[in-house]
Amino acid sequence: MPFAEMGHMGIERHKLRWNGWGWAEHRDPFSDQDEVWKWFATELGMPSLLATPARPLDDIGLPPSSLSAIDRHLLTVLLGNKAVRDDRFERAFHACGRSYADLLRLRTGDLSDAPDAVVYPGTSQDVLKVLAFASERSIAVVPFGGGTTMTGGITPRRNGHNAVLSLDLSAMEAVEIDRDSRTASIEAGIYGPALEAALAAEGMTLGHCPQSFEFSALGGWIATAGTGQQRLRYGDAEDWLLGANVATPRGMLHVSSGSAAANPQLRQLIAGSEGTLGVITRATVRVHPLPHVSTGRAYAFRDFESGAAALRDAARSGVGAAMLRLSDSDETRLCRELSEFEEPASLLEQGLSHLLRLWHYDEPCLLVAEFEGSRRSVAAARRALFGIARNHGALPLGPAPARRWQRNRFRAPYLRDAMLDRGLGVDTMEASTSWANLPNLYATLKSALTEAVAGTVPRPLAHGIILCHLTPAADSARVAFTYIFPRMLADEIGQSQAIRRAGLEAIAQNGGAPVRRDLDGHERLRLSRVEDGIAMEILRAAKNTLDPKGILNPGKLFPL
Amino acid sequence: MPFAEMGHMGIERHKLRWNGWGWAEHRDPFSDQDEVWKWFATELGMPSLLATPARPLDDIGLPPSSLSAIDRHLLTVLLGNKAVRDDRFERAFHACGRSYADLLRLRTGDLSDAPDAVVYPGTSQDVLKVLAFASERSIAVVPFGGGTTMTGGITPRRNGHNAVLSLDLSAMEAVEIDRDSRTASIEAGIYGPALEAALAAEGMTLGHCPQSFEFSALGGWIATAGTGQQRLRYGDAEDWLLGANVATPRGMLHVSSGSAAANPQLRQLIAGSEGTLGVITRATVRVHPLPHVSTGRAYAFRDFESGAAALRDAARSGVGAAMLRLSDSDETRLCRELSEFEEPASLLEQGLSHLLRLWHYDEPCLLVAEFEGSRRSVAAARRALFGIARNHGALPLGPAPARRWQRNRFRAPYLRDAMLDRGLGVDTMEASTSWANLPNLYATLKSALTEAVAGTVPRPLAHGIILCHLTPAADSARVAFTYIFPRMLADEIGQSQAIRRAGLEAIAQNGGAPVRRDLDGHERLRLSRVEDGIAMEILRAAKNTLDPKGILNPGKLFPL
Repeated sequence: MPFAEMGHMGIERHKLRWNGWGWAEHRDPFSDQDEVWKWFATELGMPSLLATPARPLDDIGLPPSSLSAIDRHLLTVLLGNKAVRDDRFERAFHACGRSYADLLRLRTGDLSDAPDAVVYPGTSQDVLKVLAFASERSIAVVPFGGGTTMTGGITPRRNGHNAVLSLDLSAMEAVEIDRDSRTASIEAGIYGPALEAALAAEGMTLGHCPQSFEFSALGGWIATAGTGQQRLRYGDAEDWLLGANVATPRGMLHVSSGSAAANPQLRQLIAGSEGTLGVITRATVRVHPLPHVSTGRAYAFRDFESGAAALRDAARSGVGAAMLRLSDSDETRLCRELSEFEEPASLLEQGLSHLLRLWHYDEPCLLVAEFEGSRRSVAAARRALFGIARNHGALPLGPAPARRWQRNRFRAPYLRDAMLDRGLGVDTMEASTSWANLPNLYATLKSALTEAVAGTVPRPLAHGIILCHLTPAADSARVAFTYIFPRMLADEIGQSQAIRRAGLEAIAQNGGAPVRRDLDGHERLRLSRVEDGIAMEILRAAKNTLDPKGILNPGKLFPL
Repeated sequence: MPFAEMGHMGIERHKLRWNGWGWAEHRDPFSDQDEVWKWFATELGMPSLLATPARPLDDIGLPPSSLSAIDRHLLTVLLGNKAVRDDRFERAFHACGRSYADLLRLRTGDLSDAPDAVVYPGTSQDVLKVLAFASERSIAVVPFGGGTTMTGGITPRRNGHNAVLSLDLSAMEAVEIDRDSRTASIEAGIYGPALEAALAAEGMTLGHCPQSFEFSALGGWIATAGTGQQRLRYGDAEDWLLGANVATPRGMLHVSSGSAAANPQLRQLIAGSEGTLGVITRATVRVHPLPHVSTGRAYAFRDFESGAAALRDAARSGVGAAMLRLSDSDETRLCRELSEFEEPASLLEQGLSHLLRLWHYDEPCLLVAEFEGSRRSVAAARRALFGIARNHGALPLGPAPARRWQRNRFRAPYLRDAMLDRGLGVDTMEASTSWANLPNLYATLKSALTEAVAGTVPRPLAHGIILCHLTPAADSARVAFTYIFPRMLADEIGQSQAIRRAGLEAIAQNGGAPVRRDLDGHERLRLSRVEDGIAMEILRAAKNTLDPKGILNPGKLFPL
């Protein structure tokens, strides 16, 4: 049964925060715990932290909508009255994504990029109608799923057109499951929790779980070639995507899996296309039976090097874990100290801490592993990882730290909002490299970020907290840095860009490849120009074929 | 160390058969066993079989080469004298692929499609030079790996250009292995055995093993989006392909894997491009450690239905076999009866046959499973498959039938040559479908092929032998039919086309998808026109970008 018929009608936009993360009602538990912020101040070398509240929406001026009355009217004729919205909240909510720079702009009241209106199609036909209309009337269209992107991919750009619409797919969330083939055909606007609930009702799961899971949509996962926390088991978007319907100004493009075809395939062209080639309205994805067992284990390594070696061995031998995540010693310490503000260490944890000190695990690095599958396969994977971890001198910590990680897996973006309220900045940067080059890249990128932060802090002796975790792929290692720092309030954007530039330069000079889904549009275009050459021409040719008037998400992927 | 420096210098073309399969010196052991051919005559309802020898090359007229003396000279200046060849053997060897229809034409002396000359580049730079030169001089270029394609993809077409060259990559076979990353960067002209030998010297394997393994090249596996016998473990070309250098008239296109990129990817565009978008000169592929254990097991099922159900269950539960291959009762019987011409049944086999009869496995279907990996993982996979097979009423036959399958895995194309010498035809047709629709597709396609053969045989009461085996994928089932029939010597090509048309129609009308790598160019273009619409326009746009003069393999993938 289509999920839409079960009475679920999309996520209610007004319950979400327009200038921050997630549910408007929800705040991170640390938000009001002064001792947490005192601790951060000390860690950052600051005497205290400032209150830096965001400007309320009512105080902010929006640019007038450029959508003409006649075009607005015609859109309501096409889609119905309720499906065309241009009130303050809707325009502000769709003004940009959720990168650190996006949030800085929203919080200071910069809504200059707000779309002229938001349309909510209910069907693929609606999407085709909007695109044909927009092509005819020279109106730019920006596909919008959950709006959590870090890349600037949903920031509206008019680019010479008469107006720009945000095309919000959240009303399109039908799910049809083919249990026999283990596939599901799903409308692209569905959010993670609704998608997994519909699959779970039939005993299935997609298993795609990005940090944004609660507030991002299937179409966005595909359009950004997204990756999930349990990618070792369930794969990335380009792995589980079997086919898609992609609405374009030229009509519907169907891309399908290669099981019966040897012709060149276009799925990879759609995965990562960021709405520039078409609007993904429906996707066929590979699904799996819900696992019988889902459990986690944690290990303490003496240092980052031995933990990385264990991860490499585990990835190579295909140990069967759904997730492997190694925190460096700074991330391990920060998580441990923050967790003590929430619950006192249990007797077991106290005992383990004692052992760690006794055995000179002075700066331990935490590995969290998750396992899913049958009782037998999970047991085998746990045994295999245990053997590898022991070979590299790790101390097993049992399931408790993994459970804590699970509980907090979607929390970081809420905590970021709390930091933004206290004069702090927080951003991330990822890079992948060969296992052989990992120690070099880790050390140089960490020190580049450390120095860049120290060079932009508002007072002498202040500094940042630079955290890192490592995740493995069979043929490469990926480091994900998070850096927290006191904001330079006079030039927040400049500070943010200076740090990012320093990090990207360190990656380029030390054999790393920046993870593109972590880069904003300008950063990606700069790389594309250097790297892609003829490849970009091919993408451009595809773009011209599908979108001859250039109305689809102008300024993304392709230089204007 | 690059493999080329180890003294290996490409496969020697003159040791190969120009109008048939493989080594010129090798003939299938059945070739001269009259009792085998008497058996075939009886099976086919024929009183006897005719001798139908192929015409020798010396008796056959070749069209004069259209390559001008000046262009030929310039090519020798670019590449050296030895790298430009236009003798009878070279032109005949490169005249077409190895489909049944290709062989019919070669054996009757139709060399009208022979290229005007063959060039053997030694490096990527050579390839770029040839393409730039050919673009400038309006000369078509057909990339050639091993030349075993079934799709007509290497048949030269001049298409209005001044001449057509076959670009033979077999001198390009350097292998560089990155053990640390479990990847290898390999030149595209290397054949299967040399590739695996170079990897094995470092303890690694690619594991790609098509039936053409001995005589096909890495570049061809990619350009045809090839599949291998052990795809359940090692994947298809589009799975293990991480990146490629693709020489085009516009320069070198580099496509790489998505590990660090979220931009749209072009690897899938290259896999299956059949030389129309560029010449793959080097590929980066994922490799694996050589398995500790490699073993096979066989099972007898009471009927095709219960065997298919077991395969479905095994594929779904990810049982860990490298190959699962279920023969229908006709294929099982043919293989058993043919094997008795070679070696008498062992006592164990006699005992098993007795049991099969006793327990009313009257028309048994043979499942052959192969396992590779660690001792422990292979044991677990064998146990899991044993449990599934038992649930579906199978009788375990031990390793012997699997070993026999292994020994004969590359033999079918040699046997085809022997059949062609005896007035017989043999062709294949594959289709994939959902597990639910499998019984319907299997029955209707089998009877369509049976009837089509019966309608085209040279005498009343003669008929064909229609064999089938089934291989699984997680979300679909694939049936591969082989049909053997007495040739209608007056119109062999017409007979072949009539049977194929009937088969393709049955697939289309019964919920199947023809496997495209099994279709010749005309069949594929017909499907493409129906199915692909805007997608074909995108491919065409990519083609125009990379090959503005249209010199790359004219007439393939794209209608002329």
